[in-house]
Amino acid sequence: MKIELNRSSPVSLVEQIYQHFADRILSGYFPGGSRLPSVRKLAKTVGVSPVTVVQAYVLLEKENFIERIQGKGTFVKDFYSEKGERNKEENILQQIPDYVHRTQDMYYDQQLANIQFSSPIVHPDLLPTEFLVNSMQQLIQKEPEILAQYGEIQGDFELRKALTNYLKREKIDVSPEDILVTNGSQQGIDLVARCFLGPGDVVFTEQPTYPAAIDIFRSRGATVIPVPMDHEGMRMDRLTSLLDTYTPKLIYTIPTFQNPTGFIMSQKRRRELIELANEINCLILEDDPWSEIYFDQSPPVHIKSLDQHGNVIYLKGLSKILSPGCRIGFLVASGVILNRLIAAKTNADMGNPLINQKIILPILQTNIISHLLKKLRDTLKQKRDLSLQSLSDFAPASVTWTRPQGGFNIWVTLPQGTNTIDLLHHLKKKNISFLPGSACYPSHIEWNHLRLSFSYVSDQELKKGIKELCLSIHEYLEAPQGKNRQAPLF
Amino acid sequence: MKIELNRSSPVSLVEQIYQHFADRILSGYFPGGSRLPSVRKLAKTVGVSPVTVVQAYVLLEKENFIERIQGKGTFVKDFYSEKGERNKEENILQQIPDYVHRTQDMYYDQQLANIQFSSPIVHPDLLPTEFLVNSMQQLIQKEPEILAQYGEIQGDFELRKALTNYLKREKIDVSPEDILVTNGSQQGIDLVARCFLGPGDVVFTEQPTYPAAIDIFRSRGATVIPVPMDHEGMRMDRLTSLLDTYTPKLIYTIPTFQNPTGFIMSQKRRRELIELANEINCLILEDDPWSEIYFDQSPPVHIKSLDQHGNVIYLKGLSKILSPGCRIGFLVASGVILNRLIAAKTNADMGNPLINQKIILPILQTNIISHLLKKLRDTLKQKRDLSLQSLSDFAPASVTWTRPQGGFNIWVTLPQGTNTIDLLHHLKKKNISFLPGSACYPSHIEWNHLRLSFSYVSDQELKKGIKELCLSIHEYLEAPQGKNRQAPLF
Repeated sequence: MKIELNRSSPVSLVEQIYQHFADRILSGYFPGGSRLPSVRKLAKTVGVSPVTVVQAYVLLEKENFIERIQGKGTFVKDFYSEKGERNKEENILQQIPDYVHRTQDMYYDQQLANIQFSSPIVHPDLLPTEFLVNSMQQLIQKEPEILAQYGEIQGDFELRKALTNYLKREKIDVSPEDILVTNGSQQGIDLVARCFLGPGDVVFTEQPTYPAAIDIFRSRGATVIPVPMDHEGMRMDRLTSLLDTYTPKLIYTIPTFQNPTGFIMSQKRRRELIELANEINCLILEDDPWSEIYFDQSPPVHIKSLDQHGNVIYLKGLSKILSPGCRIGFLVASGVILNRLIAAKTNADMGNPLINQKIILPILQTNIISHLLKKLRDTLKQKRDLSLQSLSDFAPASVTWTRPQGGFNIWVTLPQGTNTIDLLHHLKKKNISFLPGSACYPSHIEWNHLRLSFSYVSDQELKKGIKELCLSIHEYLEAPQGKNRQAPLF
Repeated sequence: MKIELNRSSPVSLVEQIYQHFADRILSGYFPGGSRLPSVRKLAKTVGVSPVTVVQAYVLLEKENFIERIQGKGTFVKDFYSEKGERNKEENILQQIPDYVHRTQDMYYDQQLANIQFSSPIVHPDLLPTEFLVNSMQQLIQKEPEILAQYGEIQGDFELRKALTNYLKREKIDVSPEDILVTNGSQQGIDLVARCFLGPGDVVFTEQPTYPAAIDIFRSRGATVIPVPMDHEGMRMDRLTSLLDTYTPKLIYTIPTFQNPTGFIMSQKRRRELIELANEINCLILEDDPWSEIYFDQSPPVHIKSLDQHGNVIYLKGLSKILSPGCRIGFLVASGVILNRLIAAKTNADMGNPLINQKIILPILQTNIISHLLKKLRDTLKQKRDLSLQSLSDFAPASVTWTRPQGGFNIWVTLPQGTNTIDLLHHLKKKNISFLPGSACYPSHIEWNHLRLSFSYVSDQELKKGIKELCLSIHEYLEAPQGKNRQAPLF
């Protein structure tokens, strides 16, 4: 087993070993039932004192990741029972060492649920598919040769031009030269990480945050330091005091309708954040998955709009609101930063397919995009209201939730001591899915939250699903061991 | 400036510092004219003794990357004159540290040449564009909803099924579960690197090899150790003796019509290589860009066909032979290896766009692919012959070249002491491009080669272009300083 310990990191060796195992257990990579190496063996393998390993194991045990069985050894707890069953006899030392520690097995399973609250995606019925089909038909009649052409690595120039107009309405004033088209917004995060993050580098993120971002940062060997939030977003007092210990190279934030909480970073905090980034000379990655989808009033101006020194990389995905089939996202950056991101894109895949960029072009060039967004806002607002109503109607009194003013998600909190992975396991039998909140924590995991995405399901499913979810929560809380435990129950 | 030195690496600190600068100078990232930090300053910054820095600088000077100007400092030589001019005053210490060290600026410039010998791509006229257009029209009539759907992260199942049939003809017997669809073959290399390579890991490659592969491995912090070749491919005696010093985690090879040399690894060597990989428990990444494009007899069986223990990851791109517009490539692997590659794909971009996968499906499901490949073989064989004839007719006597039995490239060698970057700079005025061979060397660079891709240009351009190229070589060799120099001449 390979554990990349960084001896010059401000993160202690105990914490690093703890994190190594916690990530892999949480992701299902080390399945329930597999045996951890003995203290002595691990200490020798990674070159630390046995005391360090013992402390890491104690921490893991305390957080219910592992259990010691007298005379047998130390084992991973059964987070995902079925899988654990299959791999019961596996020894962790036999795993092939790799660098994608934390990627969630979950991504696969969840697509299959009948009532899926797990992915913040829009139901196909709400997307402009018919329009895109027309656009595609015209395209291949007029320019069939684009199927045989490589596009520009930076992205099709016409598309980048259309995007600048789109951004202008969003009060981000840039030229086509400042835009890099990516294969979905996920690749945008990845390109930033592969350019600017490596072993020993520190990233600050909101706590909780988007799980895939944690995965990507960790897979570069970077240390992810969580910054607590309140209803105005990242807490600047906490961020400032973290600067005593850590020097971040990047601050990753989802300021508007934050994923998963739905919080909005206030205008004031946005200004403070960018001032701070200028001061300590670090980059901000502003991830904006759905700021257009506001329900009440339009959100504060983007951090990128306040950026005068080029410290902010703005990231936007269009798959969610236009067409997953096209997988188009883009980054806005400038100067050397952008040049390096283009170099990384070259390394990654030599550019997006041209045709997918051309297909969405007419929607962006016309006013159709505005109509589409209005329709999405109206429909999703209704779904939000229905979700909130259903939660009010059916949820146990000890459960709380956010009231998002935009976006696709509600953040639901169960009483302390519960674990929503337990609950998910139970709900799978009812064919209902959600995202266990624990996936959103880089460290200091809280187990008692879940993210409910209301964007995909029909109104009928929404009502039925939330009712069922609440019933299961009732059952879970009333079960004899329902409280004060974190290992699987059902 | 950040130099990631690995103090436990078998590569000396001098070599590491040398490589750091060589990569960035060669890529144009440190432009000609920029000043290197003083010995004392660099030694302090990276925490090594001044003697180490001096030795690295001496090595760089010896290889003509830098020059010392008495009383002024140490400067990057003008590899790419125009750019150098622009950035004359830049100081290297002002660069933003990043992890994409070696990515070539070249990629951009070269697409613009009138006669382009620089990219091994097929001219659009040779691609099945008409058929793909039909396929696309039928697709959007029958299944418009695919524009609104996310595909499976691993790749569309129907496509993976069709690919297994394609592979069966290639004597690789796998099931759809063993295939991962990627965004071009370039992403395939990237996914393998991000899974299995990190700082301190060692990769063996052929010398010379595919430049983008070097870029990708280096950007993960891995050490790339070149293995010399002869006409039977990687030299096993040299590889074996390198094992005394290095323990590779991955061996990257292009066994068939190697890029850039066109060499074919013999059947015997393929067997030896896989036996060796089993023995030392390392992975082989078998990159197969164009083995279908053979001119004389079909090449030896793929290394993957000989793989009994799952050590081989087979990589194939379809953009080149089917449609750059679709950007489809794929990997073949199994078990834990494949699972981790899928996890990396999830991190990278959550899967290829579905529509691009569906468009190429009918071609693969029918026998059309065989006809297409036959046409490509015939046309490219003719182009190869024409290229060889033109070289015979016009090249100076001191120039030699390979006679490829397949693929898209000829490897041309000028006399020792010449530098094809000089030549390229001159040819740009004539609007002709090629790949300077130096880009293909992980280290111990040879400057006197160039890769000539004959796949894109028309027959007429091919003749004209090679004649012009040869004329320029004549001029270059006859110029007073044409030999025994490595800095730019024209």
